[in-house]
Amino acid sequence: MEEATRLVLSLEAAPHKLRCYLWHRDACPGAAIATEFAHALKESHVWALLITPSFVQDDWCKYVMHQVLAEGPMSNRMIPLLQNLPHTEYPVELRFYYYIDLSRNPDRGHSSVNKSVLRYLENLAQKELKSHRKLDMSESSSQKDKETLKQCSPATSTLPVTNVEEK
Amino acid sequence: MEEATRLVLSLEAAPHKLRCYLWHRDACPGAAIATEFAHALKESHVWALLITPSFVQDDWCKYVMHQVLAEGPMSNRMIPLLQNLPHTEYPVELRFYYYIDLSRNPDRGHSSVNKSVLRYLENLAQKELKSHRKLDMSESSSQKDKETLKQCSPATSTLPVTNVEEK
Repeated sequence: MEEATRLVLSLEAAPHKLRCYLWHRDACPGAAIATEFAHALKESHVWALLITPSFVQDDWCKYVMHQVLAEGPMSNRMIPLLQNLPHTEYPVELRFYYYIDLSRNPDRGHSSVNKSVLRYLENLAQKELKSHRKLDMSESSSQKDKETLKQCSPATSTLPVTNVEEK
Repeated sequence: MEEATRLVLSLEAAPHKLRCYLWHRDACPGAAIATEFAHALKESHVWALLITPSFVQDDWCKYVMHQVLAEGPMSNRMIPLLQNLPHTEYPVELRFYYYIDLSRNPDRGHSSVNKSVLRYLENLAQKELKSHRKLDMSESSSQKDKETLKQCSPATSTLPVTNVEEK
């Protein structure tokens, strides 16, 4: 849990101030667990999975992993993060994804997550701009372009970090 | 899907009666998709990928392809089969593997798959025999050798064919 909090604090810091969803901090008390997970997933651009020895033994963590995979196994929106986990215990379902090992250098790992999220958001903003221009070629679209960019800016993105150490 | 079924029926026929895993026929309902794929992969000797126009547009098909690659990119255990796919759409990740084009002569294609699997199993049996002999030089090992061969016989091999046309 501590590592998840550290990562979220690092992502929420200036200058980019990414908006994050952290289970034990942001989940709505009284809501159904599975519905709350599904809502967090739907409202987020990128999903970081902090995979630890506790993660691979916890059915709810596995549940979240499969929900993330079901959102799009090739979407490039899932970032697996490893911490203190022998390679032999790594989930077989995630074997081919490129992951970040936080055990070696946590700060560099946090920075890599930050960069990956920003890159994803920049690509998303560019795609939306292109499709917007195609749809609206005949109109003056400069004002709308600015609005699209604002919607996709890092400050309005969300990033859930699954609480993997304790729940 | 029809072509996958035809291939599997051909492989399961006498005299070799290869044991196959076909997604839409053999998957366990209620299991997590990614786990079911991982299990089928682990339990099989050889993996045939039926690559069609639907395959290259389906994220789960791409997921399986990457899982197969992660099992060992140079293992000689993956057989790419092409059907009705222009060469320009062939997955870039598989460019250098020798593939079988089922569009031209399906029966010859099925026969080639059969031969490739049998060759793989024969090599596997020979390797196991050799390593067994090394380990057991001082004992009379004729009975054990027969058992090893039996374990690796075609009748006990498995071959998953990904369901690429429909899911």
